[in-house]
Amino acid sequence: MLEEKYMELALKLAQKGNGWTNPNPMVGAVIVKNGRIIGQGYHEKYGQLHAERNALSSCSESAEGATMYVTLEPCCHYGKTPPCTEAIIENKIKKVVIGSTDPNELVAGKGIKQLEEAGIEVVVGMMKEQCDALNHIFFNYIKEKKPFVAMKYAMTLDGKIATYSGKSKWITSEEAREHVHGLRHQYMGIMVGIGTVLKDNPMLDCRLPNTKNPIRIICDTTLQIPMESQLVQTAKEIVTYVATASSDTEKIKQLEEANCKVLNVHIKDGHINLQNLIERLGAEKIDSILLEGGGMLNYAALESGLVDHVYCYIAPKLFGGAQAVSPVEGLGVENPDQAFLLENQKITSLGQDVLLEFDVKRGE
Amino acid sequence: MLEEKYMELALKLAQKGNGWTNPNPMVGAVIVKNGRIIGQGYHEKYGQLHAERNALSSCSESAEGATMYVTLEPCCHYGKTPPCTEAIIENKIKKVVIGSTDPNELVAGKGIKQLEEAGIEVVVGMMKEQCDALNHIFFNYIKEKKPFVAMKYAMTLDGKIATYSGKSKWITSEEAREHVHGLRHQYMGIMVGIGTVLKDNPMLDCRLPNTKNPIRIICDTTLQIPMESQLVQTAKEIVTYVATASSDTEKIKQLEEANCKVLNVHIKDGHINLQNLIERLGAEKIDSILLEGGGMLNYAALESGLVDHVYCYIAPKLFGGAQAVSPVEGLGVENPDQAFLLENQKITSLGQDVLLEFDVKRGE
Repeated sequence: MLEEKYMELALKLAQKGNGWTNPNPMVGAVIVKNGRIIGQGYHEKYGQLHAERNALSSCSESAEGATMYVTLEPCCHYGKTPPCTEAIIENKIKKVVIGSTDPNELVAGKGIKQLEEAGIEVVVGMMKEQCDALNHIFFNYIKEKKPFVAMKYAMTLDGKIATYSGKSKWITSEEAREHVHGLRHQYMGIMVGIGTVLKDNPMLDCRLPNTKNPIRIICDTTLQIPMESQLVQTAKEIVTYVATASSDTEKIKQLEEANCKVLNVHIKDGHINLQNLIERLGAEKIDSILLEGGGMLNYAALESGLVDHVYCYIAPKLFGGAQAVSPVEGLGVENPDQAFLLENQKITSLGQDVLLEFDVKRGE
Repeated sequence: MLEEKYMELALKLAQKGNGWTNPNPMVGAVIVKNGRIIGQGYHEKYGQLHAERNALSSCSESAEGATMYVTLEPCCHYGKTPPCTEAIIENKIKKVVIGSTDPNELVAGKGIKQLEEAGIEVVVGMMKEQCDALNHIFFNYIKEKKPFVAMKYAMTLDGKIATYSGKSKWITSEEAREHVHGLRHQYMGIMVGIGTVLKDNPMLDCRLPNTKNPIRIICDTTLQIPMESQLVQTAKEIVTYVATASSDTEKIKQLEEANCKVLNVHIKDGHINLQNLIERLGAEKIDSILLEGGGMLNYAALESGLVDHVYCYIAPKLFGGAQAVSPVEGLGVENPDQAFLLENQKITSLGQDVLLEFDVKRGE
């Protein structure tokens, strides 16, 4: 019972890295000796020290003989930082309690083995479910080598994302919009179609304090993005990808000079091939994307099987309008039994608005 | 504390009349003597005895000196049944504890006065909020002389009530559909447009055991309803209104011979005037209507200011489709700040589906 409390604290610490560690996992560690917490730490930012090392260096006394609670199996390889197993052994930790094992099948268990060979007692799987859930994006990325894609939209209770005249400011309350900015911090990338850029000239940044801006990805088949758009103008400050099937070398050169990264991707039915794009983005080490598309892009992403999760914000209002735009358009399915199915309902009340979340069901 | 428990029981009893008492209120009564419940009853069905009389006749011993807990002020006038105040006085009840007062301003307080004049102690307003909420439809009807209108629709998470090819069977799960049938029992009437009749040839009945069928109301401006439709064919068993602006006397005669009640209502912009219709239905003593319209009728009803409540069932699936139908169509509003506003959010999880309920905000 008490031991779970230490792991809970480690989970809480890990969570503090949310939005900062991608494409690395969030990890928290707590060091306990004679029933007292003598050290704690978490992986604070991509490229910086791991949780275990932060916890060890925070210790108020020698960690010799102590127990470490850590949410993820300690690494045993040289990456951006030296292996954590080494530091644990050097500091004479007696026992290590682990939440999740390393999802990378090639290294899973190796960290544990190294510790055991050094005579350290290792317990695996404490609060495994919560520890796994914390890093579902990291686990997905290691397994699939592609980003986890979450489709986000805000609509009225009658399913409209704009009025018939195309106006959409604002549908949801400030509370819900702030929640969206929280997602922009959490997700490593944000993706929109060129239609949204031409219509709204958005910044796609995160406007909350102490947050990061997501990497911006624009799907722009024929390279229509205006050089004077906010996105291009701020590409020196915020990483910006333009995905295109165009070979307009002059425009590409201009964009690159403005610090945009131009990805030339395959074409499919007159639009960029989203599957190809998503693989390319995976190779660019982007582990998660918030898709804030219009109805066309949303449908194309769904049809390509890329969408993993849906955030649907619903405002307590009705627009009406046969011509008003809905969140997923395109051709659509012909029969109800061909629908894209969702599961794992999560309901959050955000003031007057409601957030409905689902995972996209796979393998049907 | 103990006294509230009796009122709670009275409320529970009252609830049993749900769907059966309209346009009368639901009422429950509990009689307590020396700390023991000696009688209880509720208004079971329109036209039958009131709760107070049912409770009195159920008493296991003389009610002399007992306390009666009743959710609504006892009536003091001759209606379909003799006044309840009379029975309370005759049975020598010592004290009456009342939840809601009579909403009819002309009689409110008269029942209380009669009891007090007979030397009975009267306490008013115990659990008033719950007692008022129980009969919001009755209270609305007494005040407005018009039915309470609830718009109901089932849609996908992307706001579609059918695929682009018009198919809608089924969107929600059996659990949600059963919930809808519960509403059909609760509401006195059900309303659809002629489009729904021509497309689906529905029965609009309630398919749950021990329930009643709602009165069926068809909005049919030009009297297109087929004589061979299920609705006309079953009009001898289930009360059926056809609201029209047509003066096709031959068709009207045929419908009346089939036992349909034809309401000739005013016309407005080429459609029947819904405000006029709703007043006519109020005059027919219909206190509540479940509007299961298509997008056109739903918008017309909203625009006419008739909709009081919205039941939105959301299924965990996405249809997509720019041409797929959404729950509220028509022209729609041009600017987000002209939206029909909703309030008093209520969220119910129905298996995989979600039911979002709101009241339509008034007086903005």
